[in-house]
Parts: sequence; C-alpha cells; structure tokens
Amino acid sequence: MDTFGEHIKLITFGESHGVAIGGVIEGFPAGISVDADFIQSELDRRKPSNNKASTTRKESDRVEILSGIFEGKTLGTPIAFIIRNENQNSGDYEYLREIYRPGHADFTYSKKYGHYDHRSGGRASARETAARVAAGAFAKTILQSKDIEITAFVKQIGTAQTPEDMERLIEETKTSGDSVGGIVECVIKGCPIGVGEPVFGKLQAQLAQAMMSIPAAKGFEYGEGFASATMKGSEHNDVFLFDEGVVKPASNHSGGILGGISTGQDIIFRVAFKPIASISKPQETVDKQGNPVRLVNQGRHDVCCVPRAVPVVEAMAALVVADNLEFSEKK
Amino acid sequence: MDTFGEHIKLITFGESHGVAIGGVIEGFPAGISVDADFIQSELDRRKPSNNKASTTRKESDRVEILSGIFEGKTLGTPIAFIIRNENQNSGDYEYLREIYRPGHADFTYSKKYGHYDHRSGGRASARETAARVAAGAFAKTILQSKDIEITAFVKQIGTAQTPEDMERLIEETKTSGDSVGGIVECVIKGCPIGVGEPVFGKLQAQLAQAMMSIPAAKGFEYGEGFASATMKGSEHNDVFLFDEGVVKPASNHSGGILGGISTGQDIIFRVAFKPIASISKPQETVDKQGNPVRLVNQGRHDVCCVPRAVPVVEAMAALVVADNLEFSEKK
Amino acid sequence: MDTFGEHIKLITFGESHGVAIGGVIEGFPAGISVDADFIQSELDRRKPSNNKASTTRKESDRVEILSGIFEGKTLGTPIAFIIRNENQNSGDYEYLREIYRPGHADFTYSKKYGHYDHRSGGRASARETAARVAAGAFAKTILQSKDIEITAFVKQIGTAQTPEDMERLIEETKTSGDSVGGIVECVIKGCPIGVGEPVFGKLQAQLAQAMMSIPAAKGFEYGEGFASATMKGSEHNDVFLFDEGVVKPASNHSGGILGGISTGQDIIFRVAFKPIASISKPQETVDKQGNPVRLVNQGRHDVCCVPRAVPVVEAMAALVVADNLEFSEKK
Amino acid sequence: MDTFGEHIKLITFGESHGVAIGGVIEGFPAGISVDADFIQSELDRRKPSNNKASTTRKESDRVEILSGIFEGKTLGTPIAFIIRNENQNSGDYEYLREIYRPGHADFTYSKKYGHYDHRSGGRASARETAARVAAGAFAKTILQSKDIEITAFVKQIGTAQTPEDMERLIEETKTSGDSVGGIVECVIKGCPIGVGEPVFGKLQAQLAQAMMSIPAAKGFEYGEGFASATMKGSEHNDVFLFDEGVVKPASNHSGGILGGISTGQDIIFRVAFKPIASISKPQETVDKQGNPVRLVNQGRHDVCCVPRAVPVVEAMAALVVADNLEFSEKK
Repeated sequence: MDTFGEHIKLITFGESHGVAIGGVIEGFPAGISVDADFIQSELDRRKPSNNKASTTRKESDRVEILSGIFEGKTLGTPIAFIIRNENQNSGDYEYLREIYRPGHADFTYSKKYGHYDHRSGGRASARETAARVAAGAFAKTILQSKDIEITAFVKQIGTAQTPEDMERLIEETKTSGDSVGGIVECVIKGCPIGVGEPVFGKLQAQLAQAMMSIPAAKGFEYGEGFASATMKGSEHNDVFLFDEGVVKPASNHSGGILGGISTGQDIIFRVAFKPIASISKPQETVDKQGNPVRLVNQGRHDVCCVPRAVPVVEAMAALVVADNLEFSEKK
Repeated sequence: MDTFGEHIKLITFGESHGVAIGGVIEGFPAGISVDADFIQSELDRRKPSNNKASTTRKESDRVEILSGIFEGKTLGTPIAFIIRNENQNSGDYEYLREIYRPGHADFTYSKKYGHYDHRSGGRASARETAARVAAGAFAKTILQSKDIEITAFVKQIGTAQTPEDMERLIEETKTSGDSVGGIVECVIKGCPIGVGEPVFGKLQAQLAQAMMSIPAAKGFEYGEGFASATMKGSEHNDVFLFDEGVVKPASNHSGGILGGISTGQDIIFRVAFKPIASISKPQETVDKQGNPVRLVNQGRHDVCCVPRAVPVVEAMAALVVADNLEFSEKK
Repeated sequence: MDTFGEHIKLITFGESHGVAIGGVIEGFPAGISVDADFIQSELDRRKPSNNKASTTRKESDRVEILSGIFEGKTLGTPIAFIIRNENQNSGDYEYLREIYRPGHADFTYSKKYGHYDHRSGGRASARETAARVAAGAFAKTILQSKDIEITAFVKQIGTAQTPEDMERLIEETKTSGDSVGGIVECVIKGCPIGVGEPVFGKLQAQLAQAMMSIPAAKGFEYGEGFASATMKGSEHNDVFLFDEGVVKPASNHSGGILGGISTGQDIIFRVAFKPIASISKPQETVDKQGNPVRLVNQGRHDVCCVPRAVPVVEAMAALVVADNLEFSEKK
Repeated sequence: MDTFGEHIKLITFGESHGVAIGGVIEGFPAGISVDADFIQSELDRRKPSNNKASTTRKESDRVEILSGIFEGKTLGTPIAFIIRNENQNSGDYEYLREIYRPGHADFTYSKKYGHYDHRSGGRASARETAARVAAGAFAKTILQSKDIEITAFVKQIGTAQTPEDMERLIEETKTSGDSVGGIVECVIKGCPIGVGEPVFGKLQAQLAQAMMSIPAAKGFEYGEGFASATMKGSEHNDVFLFDEGVVKPASNHSGGILGGISTGQDIIFRVAFKPIASISKPQETVDKQGNPVRLVNQGRHDVCCVPRAVPVVEAMAALVVADNLEFSEKK
C-alpha cells in the first residue's frame, strides 16, 4: 500500500537505486502559496549530516515539482514531484543478490513478490522516506497558515537521554562496528479542537499507522502511553476547569486526544526505533541456498537512524493533521 | 471513520443507547461455512463476567445475521449483522447532559459535532467494540480454515504480572473507588510468509492502527518494541539459518515481521490500556457552563477494561490478517 | 462492490429473499433534522402500484432506522437502516435451482461465486434498489435544505412518448405475456456551480456509474447525449452572456456540466432500460446440465420496470449530488 | 478525483502546459515482463496524425518510466511514468486569461478553484489522456498474457458511417471552420466469465464511469443500449444453449454482461463524443467582465476528436478489465 491519507492523499513511488523516487499529492486545496525553497529545505534536513550518527554518502536530493502549481500557487490538482537517484552503481550490490540481509526486508520481499530489487532494499529502503519528507513539507505549508506547529526531537539513543551521553554512545557504537536504537518524541502545538475521527479513524490510530509505517519503527505511544497501564483512573483523568471564558481540560495526561479527537491541547507522542540492521561487524548467516556465509556489509552505514527519523516523524504527523483538518473543516 | 480494512471491509454502526449496534462486512469470500454459534460465542467472551474486574450489568447481546449467508455458507455478498440494545433508559443519563466527563469523549464530540448523544458516550462508548468482536469472529472463520491462530491474554494489570497479584490489585482498586490500566499481549501463530504490504501498509502499521482504534488504548509495540531502542544491531538482528530444507530466521527479535511483511514466525505485539475513565470516586470538575461540579458516576463500572479488551484485540488482529491474506493470495 | 460514494458513503446489503435488506450511510453531516415519514414515503414511491405496468405482489417495506439519529437530528455517525423481507417462501423458487433464467444474473453469479442464492436473484434482484431509495431520501434531505431539486420521469416506454400511448403499449404487452423497455429522464435544478471533480470524477462520470449500476440500465447520456455526435461545434457550444450582473452560459447544450463540473444550470440526463427479463411467455432454454427446458415463470411480474425505476434514478442522483456537494463546500 | 481503479489503481497528474504529465500505477502485479517500446507505441497511436481530422502540432511525447520495473520485469511496486511537455509558450495563451471559452472548462474551473491554469485548459485539457493511454498500455500487457483483446474503432463521424463519407465530412467541416462529433465502438474479446462486481461495481457501471470521464464524451451504452428501450423481453433475452459441453447464452443482446458480470461473450459498448469546442470560426461571447467579445481561436485545432479518442477508449477499457481481473482471480 503506497497510498496514505483520506482527503489529502499521498502516493509515493520509487526504488532506492531506480531512476527516481517521488510522490503525488491528491486533494491538496487550491490557492495556497508554495515556497519551493521550503520544500527543498525540509528535504535537506533528512540528509546524512556531518553528525556522528550518519554516513557521509553524498545525496544531493533535489526535488523537482512537475504539476499542481501555477504562478506560485496550488491549483487544487495533483502535485507531483520527483527526486532523481544519483550514482546508482548496481555493481556495488551484486554480492547481495544471493543473500537475505539479517533485519532487512530482502527475505520477505523475495518470498512475497518472487522478483525483487536487491540493491539496498529497493522499495524497502529508508530512502523511500525522502518522498514522505517532501510531501510533509507541502502539508506543513497548510499547517503554518493555521499556526499549527509540529516539532519532533531525539528523546533517547540507546539509554542515553542527554546530548553528551548520546554523542558518547554513538562514538562507542561506531567503534565497535555496531548500531543502536532510540526514541523520537513529537509535539503538535496549535491543533484546533475536533481533529480526528471516531472509531477506526481515531487520531491516535492514524498517527500510529503513520509512525509504524516508518522503516525501523517498533513502538508507538501517546500521552502517558505504556506508563498509563500502571496508573489509576483518578490519576490519569483530566478534569475540566473554566479558564478565560472557556471550559477545557485542567491537565494533559490524555496527550491531547479524547475519544480519537483532538482536545485543543498539545498532542504528544513517541516512536521507538530499532537499531539499524546494517552493521559493520561481520554477521554469521546463510545464503539463499542455505550455505553458511559471513556477511560483511560494504559501504558506510549510519550508526543510528533516530536523528534522520526526526523530519520523517514530523512529515508523517503533518500529513495526518493536514488530512484531518480538511475533513474537520468540512463539517 | 467507521470503515476498516482494504479488501475485507468492515463498517460498524450504532450508539450505545440507540436502537442497535452492528456491522456490515464487504468482500468476504463466497462458499465459506459459517457457524452462527461460534459468532455468538465470541461475542459472549466480551460480556462482563463474574470476574472482579467487570460490572454486573446484564447484556444479553444476541447477534442477528441479516444477509450474506445462504444455506449455511457465505455468498460473497455483504454480511450484515445487528445486536439490539436493551434496557436503554435514557432518563438514567439525564444528569450527564450538562457535563463533560473527565477522560471521556463527551468534550470532543460536543465540540466537533455540535449535536451528540450524551447517553454513556453514544458512538464513543466501548459498547461499539461488540460489533468488532462479531466481525472478528467471521474473520477467524477464514483463519481457522488456514490453521492461523490468534491468542491474546492479559499480560499486566497495573504493575501486577501474576494472576494472584492482579486479583489483589483489582480488589484494592475497586474498594478505593478507582480504576487501573494494563497491557494485553497477542500472538498470531501460523501466519504464512508474505502477509502485509510495503510502505504505508506495513503489517505493523495496520496492526497499530487497528489496536490504537480500540477505546482506551495508549500504546502499541511489536517484537522487542520500546526495548529495541536500547539494543544494539548485533543483538537485535535475526540471522538466517538453514533448517529442514528451508532458510528462515534463527531468532525472532523482529516479532515476525520484516519490512512490513510477515516472516512466517509468530507475530507478537502488545497494547497498553489506560485506566477506565469512569470511576466511583467523586471528581471535582466543571459543567459545560464552567460551574464547579462534583461528578459522581451513577451505576456500576468496570475497574479495569483489560480483561474485556482481550477478545477485542483478537478480533481486530483477525480482521487485519484476514484482510491481508486475501490480498496476499491474489498476487 | 456494495459501496457507493466518496464522502457520503453508502453500503447496501441483503438478498431478495434473505432476512432483510438495508444500508449504512457513513459521512452524513451532523445536526440535520430527519423526517422518518419522508424516508418512508420515498420508499413507498418505489412500491408496485396499481398502475398497469407493475405486479400486485404486496410489499409493505417498512424502513427501520437503527443508528445515527438522536432526538430527531443526525449525529454525524453512521445511519443504519433495514427493511425486513416478508413472505419469503423459499419453496416457490425451488424450480429455479437448476436453471439459469435468460436475461438474469443467475448464470454469471453461479460462475463467479460457486455458491449463490437462486431465489429470485438473491443479491442481484431489483429488490436491492429499495435500500438505494431509502438512502437517497436521506441525501434528498440535505439537498432540500439547499433548494436543490431532483425530478425524474418516464420519458418513453417502447416507442411510446405520451401517457395514452404508453398505457396502451403496456396493456398490449401484458396481454402478449411479454415485457418492454423504456427511458427515464432526470433534471437536477438548483445545483450550484462547482459540483463535480476533474478527470476521473467528472460529474457525468459519477452519474453514469450511478445510473448504469441500476439493474436493467443499458445506456446513459447527458445534455445532447448521442445526438451531439451529429452536431457541429458551432451548434453545440454554449457561448456566454452577461445577465443580471453575472456571466453565464446563454444556452444549455452541455446539459449543465462543463469539464466535469456543474455550471449552475439544469443538469439533464437520460437512462435507457431494457425490457424486464422475466416474462410470462414460455422460453425455450436449457437447464444447468444442458437439457432442453421450457421455462415458464411462476408468479406475476412487472411488464415494464421504467415507472418503478424513476425513484431509483432520483435516489442515485441525490446520492451523487450530496456526496459532491460536501466535497465542493470543503474547498 | 485523479485516481481510477480499485485494485490496480492509476493516479494521473499534470497540466497541459506545466512541466510534465504522468501517472503512477499502484497494485500492478509483480513479475510481468514489460516492453517499454510497446508502451511508447501505444502513446504514439494517440498523437495527432496526418489524417485530416487532426492538428499538425508536433508532440513528441516520450514516456519515461521512473520506478516499478527492475531488469525488465515489474516489481509489484508502483510504476511511475512521466511525459514532459514541450514548447509550452505561455505567452501564446495570454489572450485567454480574461475569457471563458465556450464549451470548455474554463468557466467551471475558475468558479470552483478560484486559481486555475488558463493555458489551453490546464488539467482539463485532453492532453491529460496521454497519461491514460500510457497506463492503459501497462494494463494491456496483463490482458495480452491472458489472450484478452480490446479493439475500439470509429463507428460514426457526424452522420457518416463509411470511411469515404467520414473523410468528406471532415474536409467540409474543416473548410467551414467548424468541428463535428462522432461515436466510438469498442469490443472486448476473450474476457473470461465472472469479471465485474454486483450492485454499484457492475462492469457496465465501471465502464460507463471510465468512458464518461474522457473529455467530450456525452453518452455511453452497451449491448443493445438505447435501442433496448424499444425492444420486447422475448426479443432481448438471450436464452441458453448447450454447446461443446458447456451451457452458454445463444445470442448476445446483453452485450456480454449479465447482472454486472461478464458472460464470457464479447463485451460491446459505444461512446458518443460531442464536437470539439475549439473551432476556427469566430464566436460571439462575453469576457469575464461581461463585455462582448468575438473569440477567434489562435493556433490549429482538430476538427474531430473521435479518431484520437480511439486509443483512449481502449486504454480505459483495458484498465477496467485488468483491475477487475485481479479481483476476480482472488476469489
């Protein structure tokens, strides 16, 4: 399923080492000014930076907008954009043709589709998230006009929760040829009351689907999350108060959502990511014929995906909110 | 959004104290024998039992199948079923007309829809899950014919992880007029390789949406879940081995899913539930006009929703797997 | 596919001789007053009347609304309704178990599904349209509040175009044990400018799908329709004029739609229906084993479906317009 | 609505004079060999040819495939393709900025979206159909492997039904600075029994939506079509016979579909097209301010769209059949 959203729909396409990746956004409202530089700048946030967690592989990742915008404003027609893949040297990946990499999708894609692209995961590569970030930038354009702000950040890497500890852990992990997981937290400020749907379309359900669709995500929680399992109702319930002429919740244990619908408070959620599956350390596994093989990954790999996941989490959150916002305003 | 699923689609309807709740399943395959008693027996599992966590409110909850089945077998046409609501005494809820109950959806439904049903939450009531359980029983009928088995259980109530501790905690909580949260774990056995979709339709993303759409769910994780955030890649990766003529993962840190697609191993996930919002203890809140009010819930309430959530978790998991199974087989 | 619509979605269910037929409407806006008597009165329009074209089979067809309405107004939650089937005497249809009736869906349903309901067509029976008419009545409730009026009428029966000729033709056809086709025309007045979507969702495309989904429909045209094939551009084009301060088309060859979007003029279309497949006259055919058999239909049948198709055409048109209206207003 | 199809979904994008037009096909099965030359050759069929009905505007229209194919075979992932627009000289269309062209979508797009692309219709231009033809070529690739063949042809231009008459009529119409409509007929051979869905997804309903979504289409009919309105049941019904060991219809008045599902016979339908709205002859209309203006179209225009509509009709039919075929095989 390569389509996301109900009213503002995104379809993404592209293999990691194919011609291009990209997306088409359908249902985007007409008459909205789009700043192409902002779209590009969001995409740049996802690039491997010079920080210690990321590879130094050079991806210039220029987004080209093909349709849906005329004289600087959206037309209400589909917005298509592409990002061409560069330097895709197929030969570099020939050694992976006969191997299922541990922790990767090679095994399941091969079994499901028969024919698959073994070059760095093809469609299953995290490169696919670049299209999400570009699309999310369009969604943010809508949100900005309504003063809704989405901010994600690295909450935890391994067990480290301070920048110093995180940096040290990354350094150690890199030295040992390993990788490490972490947690991203996201806060949505300024979301009006009434965003989200009952029953299967609860805002938390949509956010959960969005976040768990990000490669390497292993867990999602909002508000008190898993900690709420050990709380009492009298602790967890947010009673109401009367403030500045309006009735509103007095606290925010709920994480800004009640019954699947936003309360007007900050929406807060966290996403857990597993350690990156590609590690420098050799791994003892078997090839497709079952022969023992020592897999040594070639090329450089990120030590931790969490810093680069931050703009992806924001993008998916922006798509969810923009999609629901359109729908909320309808009623 | 009252519709769930892509190929086998469920729509549910009904307010807690309306005429009836029910559902329609579209896309269910033809020619499958359906045992009406099994459907009813699954629904009975969700009833408040005599266990200490549940209310003693009597719900007979008889499911009536209206269409889609002829001479004991499915027709491939929509299966509609209803469960009539009994003893809905509107007068009992008149005191809630002017109050937003803490932790409930009254506040957000009122703001979103203007007009809403204040009687025990209306559409937002957990009663809605009865329709899910009935629909899940139909889905299980498909799974059983393929030897796929779904089993959920109470993993934790509050901090209690053994039956004795759980029972004691529930007793104490009830005495104090409070409620408590917990965690449900679910294992799907026998799921073939290849179930799930890439990108936005990853199996974990679908399961996450399904589970987070259950009332009171606050968190979802699969495989190592949040614990994976603190693991190293070399610990978390499941290398492959050659066993009985086939290549397969040697361990199951991944929770039975790689790249969004099932590996053929057990699929394992957990759902965290908050404490029930309705408590016996009085709560100091304000009414819709902002006047201070001491809310004292009338009637009896469950102390913990987790035991009754078990069949709901199973039902939603069954719907997800059956839906994807149809799709997987297509290709 | 038992679902219709994009924003206001209808799912219908039920076999002609099953327990009940019915529907669920999702996405219906909240706060709209619903008159249950009006819903029933629309359904009554579809009943076989005393006119000469229809059977005298008695169908009381009482609609029961199960959800989505509280204190007389819609909740924005799914509206479910059912119509129980009466006097379904399965024995009456036993002779059809081994026959594919000419012009009916028995042959194709049997091949597609293996297991099917042979009793008067099951799901393929025109009885299914009762649920459409009930749902259409809800849609009309929205349209009435916006002064949009939909009127369909019998344009032609056989070659007859006046009431007298139609009546005489029906009488003759009945006497000869045969059936006859006809044409329904529909006019939508008061539809605002801007309803409909570009490309695949053009208003005429949606109307065409809606109308061609009605049992026995064989053709659809709007505006000048098939006659436009023989026209010149200079004849067909509607130039614009300036009238009462607004620019608008000076004529309406286009049938009220340009580029898939309503012009604010009357929307006009026609639907052709084939003669009813069940006729009193014996038919020489073969049974499922290929043995020659003379089929003599038992029971009474309508001579012409066109008069009863009128409320169905209106209902489908109302669903299309209401669905698009919601969407148009969003933007 | 820029998306078409249920299982094999096509989204198209692009304005006539934007950067590019194109499409993304989701749900296309894996492992199918694709001949890029065939895709291009289908697109070439739609080009304005040297025949007298078409313009001499040069469109090279090279399709570039961006994703979904690896080593010559489909991956089961989205197939994205683009066709860049050439020589888009915006200045040529400046005179249209203040005019709604008669018979075109300028008026309705302007009212619906506020902001629109006035250059030759933007998204509403028939240029959009190039993406349909490319996508249809992919669909045909599936159909060819199953020996399903789709052939459309010009049935009628104006009242002319022979090549000689058609040619003469076109010549005359061109000389008079006018345009003329016509009818395309399409035959689908080799479609297996069981393709199509009950109720709203009847095969004829899907085909009708598909065809009526083509620019300039004004009518759709299948089998006996509008002529069936004047037929008797005893004439129209196709009785069954036993032939070569199978039971099948003895004639094909039904047009290859019964109850919305294919019978295994030829599927036959016709589409009526209005005369092209752009004509050389001056038209007396008003501008957006209501001032009288004599519109003289600049550039060259086709005299009749019908010859170029032929591959578009085939493409849409191929998409419908391929989409349903996937679904049929699932069950």
